[in-house]
Amino acid sequence: MSAHRDIAAPSVDGRFGLRRSVRLPGPLRLDSGASLAPVDIAYETYGTLNADGSNAILICHALTGDQFVASDHPVTGKPGWWVRAVGPGKPIDPERHFIICANVLGSCLGSSGPASIDPATDQPYAMRFPVITIADMVRAQAMLLDHLGVARLMAVVGGSMGGMQALVWPTLYPERVRSAIVIASTARHSAQNIAFHEVGRQAIMADPRWRGGDYYADGDVPSSGLAVARMAAHITYLSEAGLTEKFGRRLQGRDAKTFGFDADFQVESYLRHQGISFVERFDANSYLYITRATDYFDLAEDHGGSLARAFAQTRARFCIISFDTDWLYPTAESRNIVHALHAAGREATFVELSSPFGHDSFLLDAPEMNRVLDGFLRAGA
Amino acid sequence: MSAHRDIAAPSVDGRFGLRRSVRLPGPLRLDSGASLAPVDIAYETYGTLNADGSNAILICHALTGDQFVASDHPVTGKPGWWVRAVGPGKPIDPERHFIICANVLGSCLGSSGPASIDPATDQPYAMRFPVITIADMVRAQAMLLDHLGVARLMAVVGGSMGGMQALVWPTLYPERVRSAIVIASTARHSAQNIAFHEVGRQAIMADPRWRGGDYYADGDVPSSGLAVARMAAHITYLSEAGLTEKFGRRLQGRDAKTFGFDADFQVESYLRHQGISFVERFDANSYLYITRATDYFDLAEDHGGSLARAFAQTRARFCIISFDTDWLYPTAESRNIVHALHAAGREATFVELSSPFGHDSFLLDAPEMNRVLDGFLRAGA
Repeated sequence: MSAHRDIAAPSVDGRFGLRRSVRLPGPLRLDSGASLAPVDIAYETYGTLNADGSNAILICHALTGDQFVASDHPVTGKPGWWVRAVGPGKPIDPERHFIICANVLGSCLGSSGPASIDPATDQPYAMRFPVITIADMVRAQAMLLDHLGVARLMAVVGGSMGGMQALVWPTLYPERVRSAIVIASTARHSAQNIAFHEVGRQAIMADPRWRGGDYYADGDVPSSGLAVARMAAHITYLSEAGLTEKFGRRLQGRDAKTFGFDADFQVESYLRHQGISFVERFDANSYLYITRATDYFDLAEDHGGSLARAFAQTRARFCIISFDTDWLYPTAESRNIVHALHAAGREATFVELSSPFGHDSFLLDAPEMNRVLDGFLRAGA
Repeated sequence: MSAHRDIAAPSVDGRFGLRRSVRLPGPLRLDSGASLAPVDIAYETYGTLNADGSNAILICHALTGDQFVASDHPVTGKPGWWVRAVGPGKPIDPERHFIICANVLGSCLGSSGPASIDPATDQPYAMRFPVITIADMVRAQAMLLDHLGVARLMAVVGGSMGGMQALVWPTLYPERVRSAIVIASTARHSAQNIAFHEVGRQAIMADPRWRGGDYYADGDVPSSGLAVARMAAHITYLSEAGLTEKFGRRLQGRDAKTFGFDADFQVESYLRHQGISFVERFDANSYLYITRATDYFDLAEDHGGSLARAFAQTRARFCIISFDTDWLYPTAESRNIVHALHAAGREATFVELSSPFGHDSFLLDAPEMNRVLDGFLRAGA
């Protein structure tokens, strides 16, 4: 199925549709104190904003995700990353909703990031790009909504790092969000979360081809380091039980161990493939910046150490979903959010779903998640 | 305290004491089918073998451990890695026991490994060293015991990879082992265990200074890759709760985030230190070989898929100890061993201990573990 044909609403307004991008003049004032101008945002929209502007849903993507939520990826050709939840007959449906998904600031699929041209030098920013935060990503999304004429969101939805953005949205723009859906996420990065990301960053920076980030001119990118970073991170996206079920100790295309260093085991072959295919679609510097943004994320810290205080001014209804085998952002992190929402007197629904697939469950076939999404969205419509 | 002074028993027999090594003619026939000759084994002994030879305890070290179980490390100067359990007044006591600890085959602290000279070429083996297994390590230890005149072990003891060796010992040499103590270990490497090791190996091999393993001549070693490998592995040795307690999100020597890529967080600084200090004491090729040996480890597989069958011929009494926060080799893996021992009609004691420190608990202050060790050893004496 090509989402291009089936999902995209025809539009004469060039702002709407698939594969859109906009250059906003900015400046966008960042948490670091730096300003960014111009601000490029690459995005897609599906469906049509209704007359009273009440059916807009913003979908926020995860760490290495993109705006191609329900259309084929331009590099890999694979279907959009959330076609299981977004599409005709799905909980988020272009026939009923006006759906927006934008590439986050700092990424490499068209939005401003380290690979963008720095107007001050006419060269790629590389590591001269300002360090950005989850809140900065949200501020850029708000600028995009202004551009699209969307005053208010029916819902903001996201999994993993997308969930962080969905959490931040109602705190920065209480009047603009009616519902927030936070899936497999957390209100702060733990020491272990930071540690895994630091391994990835060190792997990239240890690659001699990284060259302090200035590798764009000759295109000789630090693919080895980025692949290792991806491999390490990928393990955290899966559960131990899921890996055992999927691969166990099965050998890869051979009857016996080779007593060598080839990928004897299927899980080795799979991981190597994950690393290699990732470098074809992602920029190493962007990986540094976006992992940094998540490591810096601590919503309570930004509100005097109190998560409840962070939610004090919000007006949205919240839906928090976790998965029982997610050890990257375990259910306890979701409970922590729910407790703070309740302490702040906010309306919060919480569901822990059972799935063997670990953190990545929200990207996979999750009929229960779809039912929760659908019910929560319809109840708030 | 210098263990040299306090623990070493004076001996006129040059085979006994600290910092010993022996070149055995071999050949040692390996699981791969290859043969190794000569076989160098670096080891230490503490205490004196009694007249009836009934007080010998073999301690098996973990992945990157060494023979310096209770004496200062020659490179780092740090106390032996298990002084909390081995020493005067400790459960394993040189005043009562004759203690042996040998550097495993494939390692780099004096026993035969990839850095050793291949007699066929007079050059370091590098990646021409044969791939070895846990059972091969045990066979080399048995050769050392022959050399030392130790017919039978009162006990074989090990944590982590040392526990794998302690498990294998009674299966290969039923007559030579009275007791086996297996701590924080497993009877087989899981898909997740293999995955983490594969990340480490890929990090090393991605380092251009690795050069297919032939880096010994100029000493320009793949330290960046090895450091990344160590960082990734180190996370698996600690619990999430332990990391949170030790570091949380505390900043390293600064009051605010720098909005840069320095080690802002203490946990980043700690991990970087772990990586950097590791490369000073360990050889990258040895890391490849020893991780491979553990990944190949599946005791049931070697016995027709039945772990109970693996234990059928053993005569030892077993003590299995796990730690509740160990997610590298979780308690379920220890239970799996105990069930198989019981199915085989073997005597097995099992204790799960509580500790916040994850897999590394057995190396840290663990008074309960010491009580279990002491009780089990005295009951079998």
